[in-house]
Amino acid sequence: METNQIIVKMVFDRWYSLIERCDEIFKSLSDERLEQEIATSKNRGIYILGHLIAVHDDMMPILNFGEKLFPELKEIFIKSPDKTVKEIPSTAELRTMWSKQNEVMTKLFKSLKAEEWFKKHNSVSDEDFIKEPHRNKLNIIVTRVSHLAYHNGQLVLM
Amino acid sequence: METNQIIVKMVFDRWYSLIERCDEIFKSLSDERLEQEIATSKNRGIYILGHLIAVHDDMMPILNFGEKLFPELKEIFIKSPDKTVKEIPSTAELRTMWSKQNEVMTKLFKSLKAEEWFKKHNSVSDEDFIKEPHRNKLNIIVTRVSHLAYHNGQLVLM
Repeated sequence: METNQIIVKMVFDRWYSLIERCDEIFKSLSDERLEQEIATSKNRGIYILGHLIAVHDDMMPILNFGEKLFPELKEIFIKSPDKTVKEIPSTAELRTMWSKQNEVMTKLFKSLKAEEWFKKHNSVSDEDFIKEPHRNKLNIIVTRVSHLAYHNGQLVLM
Repeated sequence: METNQIIVKMVFDRWYSLIERCDEIFKSLSDERLEQEIATSKNRGIYILGHLIAVHDDMMPILNFGEKLFPELKEIFIKSPDKTVKEIPSTAELRTMWSKQNEVMTKLFKSLKAEEWFKKHNSVSDEDFIKEPHRNKLNIIVTRVSHLAYHNGQLVLM
């Protein structure tokens, strides 16, 4: 096993494990419970669900996987704080998006060979990538793993 | 820059960034505030502080860095749930341990060359490591980065 294969496995072991843990939490909570705040005056569970989908959807163009699946979520769940947008997708709709997204992204992730994860992503220029080769596709997953773990820590409080 | 150097940088960028974010939160909260629960009936801030120190201290022997700095913390902050042990270190003592630990571990982390992070850690046998080369020292950091991000997500609720 080559070093790049080993490290890709290390990072994706974390990713899939965290996706599964969040998925279990979402499935264990009723719509009503998810629509409550994780702690007094903090984000609601539904906002974290929408936020995770929106942040993961942002990876689609960055990783050169094509168009986003749910571009409408960015405004609601990244640009706007919770409880400031009146019309948001229903909890049932978000649950469906979450499942669909994980299915689509898992296939895309598995379609890349280990060495491709060390190529530059689309948010860095050719010039910058020469100077900063850590700004590769795998680093997008490394940072999103942290982000996912961060919100996983919040969701367990529900 | 070699692949192993690049990936070590990617992982430690996350580690140091999360340590800094947690450090800022601990410094911004008074002892009294840290001694409160992060959410109703959940862990107290002080328990998370002690838990992080204990989990990071566990890395010392695993990474072959020598004896733990604070072996007494494991029983209190890993083996026992919060609010079940009567005598625990004071918040001031834990703050001092946290700073000391980060100072010591940063020096140790920086003393290893990139390729050494891909060698086996002390919780895996030689035979298993041949079959599972991802169980290397860097993977200990990869999993502790997730753990740190998870509790960072909880600490921001304080």
